[in-house]
Amino acid sequence: MTPGKIVSNTRVVRASYANKARVTTAQFRVEANQEIDLSSVKEGEVILRNLYLSLDPYVRFTLDETGGDMPQSFRQLNDPFYGLGVAEVVASGYEKYPVGTLVTANTGYEKFTRISGLNDPNTQSDIRVLPAHARDESTGVPLSNYISALGMPGLTAFAGLKVLGIEPKKTIFVGSAAGGVGQLVGQLAKVQGLRVIGSAGSDEKVSYLIEKQHFDGAFNYKTEDAREALTRLAPEGIDYYYDTVGGEILDLVLEIINEKGKILSIGMVSQENGKEPYPIRNLNVIARKAVSILGFIYWHHLQYFANGELDDAVRPLLERKEISYREEVFEGIENAPTHFVNMLDGKYAGKVIIKIADL
Amino acid sequence: MTPGKIVSNTRVVRASYANKARVTTAQFRVEANQEIDLSSVKEGEVILRNLYLSLDPYVRFTLDETGGDMPQSFRQLNDPFYGLGVAEVVASGYEKYPVGTLVTANTGYEKFTRISGLNDPNTQSDIRVLPAHARDESTGVPLSNYISALGMPGLTAFAGLKVLGIEPKKTIFVGSAAGGVGQLVGQLAKVQGLRVIGSAGSDEKVSYLIEKQHFDGAFNYKTEDAREALTRLAPEGIDYYYDTVGGEILDLVLEIINEKGKILSIGMVSQENGKEPYPIRNLNVIARKAVSILGFIYWHHLQYFANGELDDAVRPLLERKEISYREEVFEGIENAPTHFVNMLDGKYAGKVIIKIADL
Repeated sequence: MTPGKIVSNTRVVRASYANKARVTTAQFRVEANQEIDLSSVKEGEVILRNLYLSLDPYVRFTLDETGGDMPQSFRQLNDPFYGLGVAEVVASGYEKYPVGTLVTANTGYEKFTRISGLNDPNTQSDIRVLPAHARDESTGVPLSNYISALGMPGLTAFAGLKVLGIEPKKTIFVGSAAGGVGQLVGQLAKVQGLRVIGSAGSDEKVSYLIEKQHFDGAFNYKTEDAREALTRLAPEGIDYYYDTVGGEILDLVLEIINEKGKILSIGMVSQENGKEPYPIRNLNVIARKAVSILGFIYWHHLQYFANGELDDAVRPLLERKEISYREEVFEGIENAPTHFVNMLDGKYAGKVIIKIADL
Repeated sequence: MTPGKIVSNTRVVRASYANKARVTTAQFRVEANQEIDLSSVKEGEVILRNLYLSLDPYVRFTLDETGGDMPQSFRQLNDPFYGLGVAEVVASGYEKYPVGTLVTANTGYEKFTRISGLNDPNTQSDIRVLPAHARDESTGVPLSNYISALGMPGLTAFAGLKVLGIEPKKTIFVGSAAGGVGQLVGQLAKVQGLRVIGSAGSDEKVSYLIEKQHFDGAFNYKTEDAREALTRLAPEGIDYYYDTVGGEILDLVLEIINEKGKILSIGMVSQENGKEPYPIRNLNVIARKAVSILGFIYWHHLQYFANGELDDAVRPLLERKEISYREEVFEGIENAPTHFVNMLDGKYAGKVIIKIADL
């Protein structure tokens, strides 16, 4: 605790709902210069000083009055917008997280975040304490990686490949391969000796995947027919498909996947936003070719944070530059609405992160 | 070998194709009194005396000129109709299967079957040597069980449950629960401590499942709405679905299955016979609820025959009458066409078997 120390918060709150319309910066309001007395921290509370913030497309739904799977409490007007961040504990009323602890947590779009109720056994906290070496950026691994390659996208890629049970020399097709999860899926599979094929939405991303991230092949799904591309790039067929899209491309993969092939389904963005679901017609091949479709939910696999397995597996690859992770880091929490809207409009490649403060 | 011994064969051959039409006995021809000299057995051959024959709906497709996954050689006119049987080796030119060996094999619809090419390493034989105790029917386990509960249907049920990875106290829903596979799936799951729900196509079968095979619940899918029935019979929801049907019922199960639920897909009879496939609309729940659909092909799991695991697991249950297997056994190979047609017309409950000869 730091009694009597006053800090100044800035928050980005939901000002209005977009509902089905295109999101603009008008949905947000920046509230600056709100004083927080760090000595006000209570038993079971921490106050966090936020360092990096992850901007994620999936929180778009919290700008609708209804919809999505998360509780209504995540979409209140005048509350900070939802986001995961890297932060340092600067005031603590909870022994497990003393001052100076580095964590990731749902910090929201603000400079300082108060988290309460930690000593209530009925409250589940999403606070993750980072390993000591997270602080050491001289290794070439930036702290921001704890909300990207070593955070939720990293876990989703790493655990997803475990669920798939990938084997060397087989071929994996990664949908949204240039995205925050896809780029890691491809590179981690490549390191394990697979042939890796990806799709992305621009020629620039396709080139990046092949030249910088060593994919064996990639294609622009906006300009090339997927059936032709997959036939050309995977002459021995597809054994695994890491699917974030669903719909038509899933139906195509079902048709052409090899016997005993496996599909990991981590979401079906093509089927969201209240659209009429694409009717899948090739499910009969599941029995005919002993194919599996495996559903994946990120929070079923948090043990790889707790037991350090994700860090042990991925951090050395980043340090040795055997894999790379593409981030777009912008400065200043007050600029978060602009970058969130630009991201939704597809203006950025790589994971979008706001740097709020130095460590 | 039994030099000079002449036996008299009777065969039931394909006389004409039914193609898309209803199969009648006109598709078959019985050819009696064909002499076979057992001493004619050559190197790499055996001659089998067939004891029991399995009549299976899935071989219906061999009465079409085209279609299905099996090779064209299984649908030749004037060849014995396709079927698995229990048989005894009565002449042998192959050391691994001496005279007196009990086997199951693709014997076809006939009294005696010659199998050649056994010493050709490029030929795959489906001959399975039965364990010594198969011969001992005093245990209460008839030899015919080696083409039912201890044969292909047994393996399909047993290995399918292994692939599902069932856990006690969870609920499994078995489609076609009164069929040759379904009745075993339900009973084996029940023995392992699950709550077992099944569907069947008549009130008689529903009663049989509950009263004789100890299902926790069953419903007649022809007279009751599946959604209402499953809600009523599985108040804690469905964790596993053993699916042989696909289509509309699979789409319903996807909608109502519990989080982390698993579906085993061993075939989609509703999607066969060139019908327009039913468009599945609920696949998005796979990611939302971490559900898996696991495709299953019987011949990927033959190791449970070879290593005795199926026999070790299921035979004691049959001997102790902890599970029962419903067979309809008819006498005489010449009657096989009538019973095959009756079976296709849904006139029988339980696995249909022809007894050809005494051991």
